[in-house]
Amino acid sequence: MIGLVCDLGGTNARLGLSVDGRLAPETLETYANDGFVDFPSVLSAYRTRHGGIGVDAVCVAMAAVPTADGARLTNRDWDIRRVDIADIFGTNDVHFLNDFEALGLSLLRADELETQALFPGSPPAGAATRLVLGAGTGFNAAACFPPRIGPTPCVSAAECGHMTLAVEGADEMSLQRYLARGRGRASNERALSGRGLFEIYLWCCERNARPAVLAGPGEVAAQAIAGGDADASEAADCFLRFLGRVAGDLSLAFLPFGGIYLSGGVTRAVAPLIASTATFIEAFRAKGRQTELMASFPISLLLDDRAALSGCAEWMRLAQRA
Amino acid sequence: MIGLVCDLGGTNARLGLSVDGRLAPETLETYANDGFVDFPSVLSAYRTRHGGIGVDAVCVAMAAVPTADGARLTNRDWDIRRVDIADIFGTNDVHFLNDFEALGLSLLRADELETQALFPGSPPAGAATRLVLGAGTGFNAAACFPPRIGPTPCVSAAECGHMTLAVEGADEMSLQRYLARGRGRASNERALSGRGLFEIYLWCCERNARPAVLAGPGEVAAQAIAGGDADASEAADCFLRFLGRVAGDLSLAFLPFGGIYLSGGVTRAVAPLIASTATFIEAFRAKGRQTELMASFPISLLLDDRAALSGCAEWMRLAQRA
Repeated sequence: MIGLVCDLGGTNARLGLSVDGRLAPETLETYANDGFVDFPSVLSAYRTRHGGIGVDAVCVAMAAVPTADGARLTNRDWDIRRVDIADIFGTNDVHFLNDFEALGLSLLRADELETQALFPGSPPAGAATRLVLGAGTGFNAAACFPPRIGPTPCVSAAECGHMTLAVEGADEMSLQRYLARGRGRASNERALSGRGLFEIYLWCCERNARPAVLAGPGEVAAQAIAGGDADASEAADCFLRFLGRVAGDLSLAFLPFGGIYLSGGVTRAVAPLIASTATFIEAFRAKGRQTELMASFPISLLLDDRAALSGCAEWMRLAQRA
Repeated sequence: MIGLVCDLGGTNARLGLSVDGRLAPETLETYANDGFVDFPSVLSAYRTRHGGIGVDAVCVAMAAVPTADGARLTNRDWDIRRVDIADIFGTNDVHFLNDFEALGLSLLRADELETQALFPGSPPAGAATRLVLGAGTGFNAAACFPPRIGPTPCVSAAECGHMTLAVEGADEMSLQRYLARGRGRASNERALSGRGLFEIYLWCCERNARPAVLAGPGEVAAQAIAGGDADASEAADCFLRFLGRVAGDLSLAFLPFGGIYLSGGVTRAVAPLIASTATFIEAFRAKGRQTELMASFPISLLLDDRAALSGCAEWMRLAQRA
């Protein structure tokens, strides 16, 4: 069985083929969306490049909450529609997943992904729940529950970026007020995103009465790692504290004894500081009587850019078996 | 197939028989734990009362995080051990569940439970994720995911009471400080529990410079409903705001399009105020751009004292089928 898998972000589209539920690495292509007028054009370009190949099924993961008929892409004015995909590839077997759902599904074969262990924890012998979470343009998470009764696993969809940001103490309350201005509230992704890291930096500059000299979150992360800018270091420290706290709270909601996988461009940009400073792990474990439980969860970085595609392939493998 | 099901709390033990995975109402008994020296004595009393009946399997739900061999009961000095159960009933087919896991499993047959609709939402046509959450001695939640690929559903275990309590604004920050005193932090269940409701009341009395005249959370809830005590009303309003916010945050983590079920003794004690005031539902829906999503989740009260037993029966039905 040949499937087309696609990981569609606001900026890039990754496409590839899955053969019997496994990604075929030599078929992978990445396209910049700016070079195309719409999603069908991307699909047609891929199909042409691969000799007009026919597929049995299609699975598209995207930063949106899709229905069975498709979705409008977040951060780009594109409609992703079942009928267009069916037209181009001649199959009605079309599946849509949220991007984090696809990452969650990829954790069913986590040992095949490119990861980096950060904190070993005490993983159990058998299969156990895994959790992927991360900050990029926004913030989200997905849990992957192994089969417990019967043969099938389960992956949860979520909108964790919109949960209320939990602050502690007067200092963070002042930041909450800053992040909430003009919006009435501060959600997780007001802090845990690229824009969030930069706003935290601007807040640090303001209260330290220093001019903001850095231009965006990438510079903030780089300067924090280099140790070259006090406000950037303060901002990254605050970001890591929120990341640790929220990762800890989501771990209490999902109990991922099988491991936590940190993903996302902003998470990866600050990753060296997750291991080299105590801020993240102390905030993660600061759950009162549950500190020992928290220490048992293994924590890794998810570095595999193909993870969402692997999740799509896994979804098609499961759908075919069902 | 005859199964023994047991819902074991700190105060009471409910026991009954399940026949082919369905609870047999005429077999249900409730025992006060104070009348017994240990858990085997409770089991023996039940067995004697039912003519020395033999069972094929046993499933015990309890307020603890059990291993395959059992657990120590939270709030009572009892060890619940597989070997004791196997001795008394002559079966090695013994299962342990966390109490909220059992409630989550009962949602697979939510239409058979005693519930009260509070907010109708927009439930989808097919099976969808359901979430049970509630405040009693502590606070917790469990999600029940319907079969999506393949035949088996999935229920998540959690420790949501220990998540960081999310506060907003200076007033709540002062309460956070009050609830955290002597402990370093305030978790969800520092507010969302019987003890929590009472501490919120004491905080209200203190800042209103009035003596605390009520003796416990039951009186606070009753006076808030009767409108007879300004501090009790203020405390209940604050409790409902936290309950709504946390229920909203957990709904963003689990997306329970199939419904949210509010359970627990303290939740039920303040239930009339959930529907008659705007506090709970406004806090629940105050999730920025996701307000419309929040309004789509149906919300009910779970009033069925047999729900955990039904969940145990459902677990045995699924285990037998697997």
